[in-house]
Amino acid sequence: MLVQCVPNFSEGRDPERLSRLQAAAQATANVRILGFEGDADHHRSVMTLAGDGEAVLDAVFRTAAVAVAMIDLREHRGVHPRMGAVDVIPFVPLANTPMEYAVDLARRLGERIGRELAVPVYLYEFAATRPERRNLADVRRGGYAALQARMARDAPDFGPGTPHFTAGAVAVGARRPLIAFNVYLNTQDPTIADRVARAVRGSSGGLVGVKALGMDTVTQGQVQVSMNLVDYPKTSLPAAVEMVRREAARFGASVTRTELVGFLPVSAAVDSLRYYLQLSDFDSSRILEMALAYEPSGPRE
Amino acid sequence: MLVQCVPNFSEGRDPERLSRLQAAAQATANVRILGFEGDADHHRSVMTLAGDGEAVLDAVFRTAAVAVAMIDLREHRGVHPRMGAVDVIPFVPLANTPMEYAVDLARRLGERIGRELAVPVYLYEFAATRPERRNLADVRRGGYAALQARMARDAPDFGPGTPHFTAGAVAVGARRPLIAFNVYLNTQDPTIADRVARAVRGSSGGLVGVKALGMDTVTQGQVQVSMNLVDYPKTSLPAAVEMVRREAARFGASVTRTELVGFLPVSAAVDSLRYYLQLSDFDSSRILEMALAYEPSGPRE
Repeated sequence: MLVQCVPNFSEGRDPERLSRLQAAAQATANVRILGFEGDADHHRSVMTLAGDGEAVLDAVFRTAAVAVAMIDLREHRGVHPRMGAVDVIPFVPLANTPMEYAVDLARRLGERIGRELAVPVYLYEFAATRPERRNLADVRRGGYAALQARMARDAPDFGPGTPHFTAGAVAVGARRPLIAFNVYLNTQDPTIADRVARAVRGSSGGLVGVKALGMDTVTQGQVQVSMNLVDYPKTSLPAAVEMVRREAARFGASVTRTELVGFLPVSAAVDSLRYYLQLSDFDSSRILEMALAYEPSGPRE
Repeated sequence: MLVQCVPNFSEGRDPERLSRLQAAAQATANVRILGFEGDADHHRSVMTLAGDGEAVLDAVFRTAAVAVAMIDLREHRGVHPRMGAVDVIPFVPLANTPMEYAVDLARRLGERIGRELAVPVYLYEFAATRPERRNLADVRRGGYAALQARMARDAPDFGPGTPHFTAGAVAVGARRPLIAFNVYLNTQDPTIADRVARAVRGSSGGLVGVKALGMDTVTQGQVQVSMNLVDYPKTSLPAAVEMVRREAARFGASVTRTELVGFLPVSAAVDSLRYYLQLSDFDSSRILEMALAYEPSGPRE
C-alpha cells in the first residue's frame, strides 16, 4: 500500500539538526526520502517520504521522536503558523491506495506519539474525529502561544491534556495530495500580499480548494503569498496563479517568480500544460519518460 | 543502449493495415510500442518504439518489410509530404545513449532495407553522408511524384538507383528528440495557416529550430499549422505556441487548440511549466511520479 507522508518540522536553519532528522528517517528500511527542504525564513522544514504504509509509519515516528527531543518551541521564531516541534504530519494515499488506509495510519501514529512521546495529538482532515477539526487552520489556530488555553477547553485525540513543555502539540491527519507553492510579488508592501491572499483563497470568497496567506516578511525586496491547493482537480495551478496575477495587478504589482514546496503530482503538471498550451487529448502517458516507467510493457492499442 | 525509433508510414486510414504494421513490430521481443497513431487527413501513421538498439532495429525492419509489401504509393492521397510507403525512419538516442550509436543503427538498417527489400535509402540528419542531405525536407523535396527525376541525378546511400515501383524510397536517419504538434486556428482560410507557418519557421526568418507547414485542408471548420521543434532546448514549446498566437492574431484568427503527435520529452514539459508558471528551481525530479520512478532510492541530500 503506497503512501506518501510529509512531516513538517519547526526547524529550518541548523544543518546539524536537519541532518539528525533525516538520519532518523533513514534508519527505517524501504522508505524513500524524496526530499527534505529547510526554509530559513519560515524556520521550518518539510520532509517527503514515500513507501509502504507500515515502513513509512515507522520512519515518521522515529523523526518525530528526534524532533520532540531536540526542538524547543519556546525559542522558535518564524513567520509560519505552528504549534509543535513536529507540527503537522499528513499521510497521503498514492496510486490505488484508499483514503481509509491513510486514515488508519494517521490514527495509529497519533496513538503512538501520544503514548510514547507524551505529546498531545489532534487528528485532522480525513482522520478527524469531529467536523470542527477537519480544517488544519482551525486545529492550529493561535499556534503554540495559545495552545495552553485552547487545550483546556478542547481535549486532544491522544496524549496528555496539556501541551508538551517544549514540543507543543502535533496535528496528524490524512489528506488528498496537495500542491504547496509560494508566489513572489515585486513590492515591499506586505499588505499587498495579504490583500491578494484574501482575494484568492476560498475561505474569504476566492477560489474553491485554495488556501493562501500573505507573509509578513520581505525576502530579497519582495513579498510572498504562500499557497496550498487542496483540491487541484477542481482548482488548478494555472487558475490560482492567474488569479494572483490579476489581483496583484490591481495594486500595480506583478509576479516575479513562483516556487514549489515539495512535489508536483504529474496530473497537476498535465493539467497545467493542457491549460496554457491548449493541448487536447493529452495525459501523462504522452510524456515519454512517464510512458517508459509506467505503461504496461505490451503495446498500447 | 536505450533508443527510440519513430517510423512514419503512408497509411493512416485502414485499421486492418494498421494492425498488420503493429503486429510486425510486436514480433520482436523486448521492444515497447509506446504508441501508434493513424491520421486519416494526413493518411499517415506514426509508430513510437523504444528499447535496446538491436531489438528496435529488428522490429523496425519487420514493419518496414510489411509496409513495402502492402502499401502502394501510386494510390496514395494525403496532405503530408511523402516519398515512400515507409516514409521516414528516425532513430533517437534516449537517456545516456550517444548520438553515434543511433547513427550506426540508421546506417545498418538502411543497408539492410536497400539489400533485402530493394528500396532506395537516403540517410539524413546526423546519419547523412553529405551536408545537403542533413535536412529531411531537402531529402524529400518533390515527394513521390518527383522521385524518379530526382534519383537520376542523386544516387541513394543504399539500394537500387531507381524508385521502388510501389514503395518509393525511404529516409533513414538519426536525430535529437523532436516535438511534433499541430495548432488549429478558427478560420477556414488555408492561406492564413500558410502565412502563420512562414512567419514562425526558422527557414523563412522565424524561430530557430522550428519547422512549420500550413496544411492545405480544413478540418472541422479549422485550418491547421503542423509544427516540429527540432531543437527545443533552444526554442521551447511555449515560445513557438505564443508566436503562432501573435501571428494568427494579425489575421484576426485565434488558436482553438493544439495537439501533440507522439510523445513529449519530460524536459520539454518542465520547461513549459517553468515558462508559464514562472517556476524557479523546478526540474523533473520535482514531479512526484518521476521522482518515484527515476530517483536513486537513497535520500536526495
